[in-house]
Amino acid sequence: MSYPEKFTGFQSPSADKWLEFDKNSWDPRPFGDHDVDLKIECCGVCASDLHTICGDWGGCPYPLAVGHEIVGKVLKVGPKVTLAKVGQRVGVGAQMYSCGECRQCKNDNETYCSRKIHTYGEKYPGTASIGQGGYSSHARIHEYWVFPIPDGIPSAQAAPMLCGGITVYSPLKRFGAGPGKKVGIVGIGGLGHYGIMFAKALGAEVWAISRSRAKEADAMAMGADGFIATGEADWDVPHKMTFDLIVNTANSSDGFELNRYLNMLDVHGRWNSVGIPGGDAGMTINNRDFIRNGCFIGSTHLGSRREMLEMLELVAARGIKSWVEEIPISRAGLQTAMDKMHNSTVRYRSCMVAYEEAFGA
Amino acid sequence: MSYPEKFTGFQSPSADKWLEFDKNSWDPRPFGDHDVDLKIECCGVCASDLHTICGDWGGCPYPLAVGHEIVGKVLKVGPKVTLAKVGQRVGVGAQMYSCGECRQCKNDNETYCSRKIHTYGEKYPGTASIGQGGYSSHARIHEYWVFPIPDGIPSAQAAPMLCGGITVYSPLKRFGAGPGKKVGIVGIGGLGHYGIMFAKALGAEVWAISRSRAKEADAMAMGADGFIATGEADWDVPHKMTFDLIVNTANSSDGFELNRYLNMLDVHGRWNSVGIPGGDAGMTINNRDFIRNGCFIGSTHLGSRREMLEMLELVAARGIKSWVEEIPISRAGLQTAMDKMHNSTVRYRSCMVAYEEAFGA
Repeated sequence: MSYPEKFTGFQSPSADKWLEFDKNSWDPRPFGDHDVDLKIECCGVCASDLHTICGDWGGCPYPLAVGHEIVGKVLKVGPKVTLAKVGQRVGVGAQMYSCGECRQCKNDNETYCSRKIHTYGEKYPGTASIGQGGYSSHARIHEYWVFPIPDGIPSAQAAPMLCGGITVYSPLKRFGAGPGKKVGIVGIGGLGHYGIMFAKALGAEVWAISRSRAKEADAMAMGADGFIATGEADWDVPHKMTFDLIVNTANSSDGFELNRYLNMLDVHGRWNSVGIPGGDAGMTINNRDFIRNGCFIGSTHLGSRREMLEMLELVAARGIKSWVEEIPISRAGLQTAMDKMHNSTVRYRSCMVAYEEAFGA
Repeated sequence: MSYPEKFTGFQSPSADKWLEFDKNSWDPRPFGDHDVDLKIECCGVCASDLHTICGDWGGCPYPLAVGHEIVGKVLKVGPKVTLAKVGQRVGVGAQMYSCGECRQCKNDNETYCSRKIHTYGEKYPGTASIGQGGYSSHARIHEYWVFPIPDGIPSAQAAPMLCGGITVYSPLKRFGAGPGKKVGIVGIGGLGHYGIMFAKALGAEVWAISRSRAKEADAMAMGADGFIATGEADWDVPHKMTFDLIVNTANSSDGFELNRYLNMLDVHGRWNSVGIPGGDAGMTINNRDFIRNGCFIGSTHLGSRREMLEMLELVAARGIKSWVEEIPISRAGLQTAMDKMHNSTVRYRSCMVAYEEAFGA
């Protein structure tokens, strides 16, 4: 594999031309002792990518190549690297740095490290370099955030799991999805489809929750035990105080009757939201909303390295298949992927592929 | 002890005269096989009493005698009663019925039973009788909701624990307050003072959190390890991501900067509110508020029978003392108690006493 001085990728030039995806080259940050360079093979398309480059989360450092569901081959490792080796197929998710020293880092909560750096759009510690994502030829990542991909999982299947998958796997695992538990997954999209498959694989009873029944057949094929359409009358009534956990993957809170969801939770059940809607006005809550069942609402953020490796093992062992549409990477390909995400027509995750055609072998 | 046909108490006649406390008599509901009659000796004064009779929670069935921190002596037990005996000193808290059959009742979550009946103001199942509270001579309660009081605890000390105490004991116990955990108690009032004492007794590091330092000396005397005054600059900064649990006992959410409290929580830490402010507009929340530390907000409601007995044992074993002001029961006495609660001048809980003078021996 060739080894370039510069990395090349498709960057969004500005907030008003965010769909332009200019093909540019840039200097990667200085290579550190714990760094791993990889040649990217494919990259999943996450809602975070769209929110970031269209500017509705604010503060995007243009020009920026996004993409944080990366699979590639290791080209080079720093002298102190022990977690990856040259030639290995590895993945990278949405985070590329944590301090390794704080209480959170030391107890498998490194995604909550207060010095964490996400894979793109943030300045790497000790450098002036803004991280560029996986819509590009190569990536340079601290070994801790590089995950070996088991042989049984095709690259374009594995990639979307590295953010979309782990984002739902972590709360399912942490909050006890398993035999005897009833779990709801709100929103049947990129994250939600993993939610259904992983909750089922962990042994829970899983209900898919969506506005209409349009995705019911798909949800059942993914392994759902039941389906709730919130556009129907009294949808919540049969489920009052029965769910142990509801993972909300919806990307919008418009028109959400949060109370009706919360009333479906059993005592101290959790409503765990993993989406961050853009420009969101939030929801009004009152202590009374929680007191009937002593429920809790909150969020989780990604998942630990340990959980990432566990998830990939589970996927390989059970033969879990991502529902993924492969799109060759190019300006037009990325525009198509953004369009499908924006219109929610993707079934259920896009993955940019054919990197050799765009960036060379 | 004399045994009356009618029970007598101080009832609030209407929303506009809620402080009148008329002394009236009424027929108790029919005596059931599992019922326990007690002659009331004293009753703590809870914020719920005020919220209910002043009408700001709505729907108060006037005339109503409130009071749900009751201690008295058992006069009579139904033929199937096994949990209390005549002559025994017992307590009653804020709930007097649960179905005993549902999933919640069967796993020590009977305070979340969907058929639960609170001690006053609600119709008792199978009767037309509205429960009257402990500002009265006697009470008739299902045995399950009658708790033996250990000998070492004076009655006026025990009474306010039966709602104020258990309301904070339950979340502390359920959410792991103990050695190695850092717990915050927001609001140093009737509930908060128990929060400090119980969290300390359970082995946690306890911080009292109040607007000013006015109650600092008291909080330290109760056992707090530290004190945070939220009226001071940067009060939250030294504590970022360090609290495992914060129990919010504040009776108002006006001017609350919820984010600053939430940022003090460690990963998946809980903000547990146990007050229900009257006429509260609620707070606006957004997923972003939770994602830095994956925290959760919610509420708990009272505590189970098992927790009540455990709490009373802990209090007896450790010699924990309620900070209580005793006020002889009468119309004027109740008006004084309501006034002190409304103005937050009580230190830290009122208990109505001298029942024999008001109602006879």
